[in-house]
Amino acid sequence: MTADRLERQLAFIMELDRLKQVLRRNVIADRSRQENTAEHSWHIAMMALVLGEHADGEVDIGRVTKMLLLHDVIEIDAGDTFAYDAAATRDQAERERVAADRLFGLLPDDQGGDLRALWEEFEAEESADAVFARCLDRMQPLLLNRATDGVSWRRHGVTVDQVLARNSIIKDAAPSLWAVVERLVAESAEEGLLAPRAQDS
Amino acid sequence: MTADRLERQLAFIMELDRLKQVLRRNVIADRSRQENTAEHSWHIAMMALVLGEHADGEVDIGRVTKMLLLHDVIEIDAGDTFAYDAAATRDQAERERVAADRLFGLLPDDQGGDLRALWEEFEAEESADAVFARCLDRMQPLLLNRATDGVSWRRHGVTVDQVLARNSIIKDAAPSLWAVVERLVAESAEEGLLAPRAQDS
Repeated sequence: MTADRLERQLAFIMELDRLKQVLRRNVIADRSRQENTAEHSWHIAMMALVLGEHADGEVDIGRVTKMLLLHDVIEIDAGDTFAYDAAATRDQAERERVAADRLFGLLPDDQGGDLRALWEEFEAEESADAVFARCLDRMQPLLLNRATDGVSWRRHGVTVDQVLARNSIIKDAAPSLWAVVERLVAESAEEGLLAPRAQDS
Repeated sequence: MTADRLERQLAFIMELDRLKQVLRRNVIADRSRQENTAEHSWHIAMMALVLGEHADGEVDIGRVTKMLLLHDVIEIDAGDTFAYDAAATRDQAERERVAADRLFGLLPDDQGGDLRALWEEFEAEESADAVFARCLDRMQPLLLNRATDGVSWRRHGVTVDQVLARNSIIKDAAPSLWAVVERLVAESAEEGLLAPRAQDS
């Protein structure tokens, strides 16, 4: 192992620190501030450790955890794209590809390639591991919105249909979690935290 | 699977959110604010994915990652204990044991027991996985201090001997990482970021 290899790994690790400065639209449970992407990534990795048994079919929770830890690293360059912002999501894929080139490129080639492949697998949402990882990534902001009287939903006028569509991947991949999603969305709609439909514009 | 089981898992997951509010003594790399324990846990889990090859001997990086993700959950109740605060470290073990009882107790018994056993394995520092996990947990604040001109070291008058003693577990467990520790400490001492020895009191 060359010293250069370790230097590249350390450079990547220090670059990762910047994910702590990327702010998401949702707030943490005490509503004191926005959540950042690094702590979000930790939270969903912990969800993988706890909720693995709810996956329908076989998933490798170790791989799911790894995917969840690294799937948002590209936000260091590409920023967080709000799920319900149609304009921003339009060029999201290209911005994230360029970010992946640079960030995974900091690592030794073999290692950067391995992590990038795992990120691409997550993005493609085709493998069972990627689908379950996505379920947890989708479900976490819903849990936080529910815990905070939908502060982020209300601020952005998010509708019942939008949340159900966004979380629909959970329906087949983790039926017991989907039942929770349906219940939380129904309760939130009843309390007026989610708009019934998109506002006329 | 009972509905109650999933409810207990969700209660634990929501409780985890509070780790985002536990502040550590070190600052993030841009020095804008203190680091919180949730994002610290994410950072060291990422270090496990990248630095696993530097472990001397066989380690299971999946287990190491899991340990690192959950090892500080007890700080939700017990708070962060500054490594160089002798008074606070005195009753740390008892405070953390009580915290573990409550927090892992939120989960279904089998699952809470499994995660608690992993936390205890980390704390005992006996298995190869636990020792390597501890190495990364020790090394990360050193990297952040080095990146921030030792702002946390200087604020608390930390000495060369203290940092070397605290990181000494790395010496045999990951010799190539230990070489980095020695270099960073020597550079930091030369620049006056670390005090040469404890101040007379």
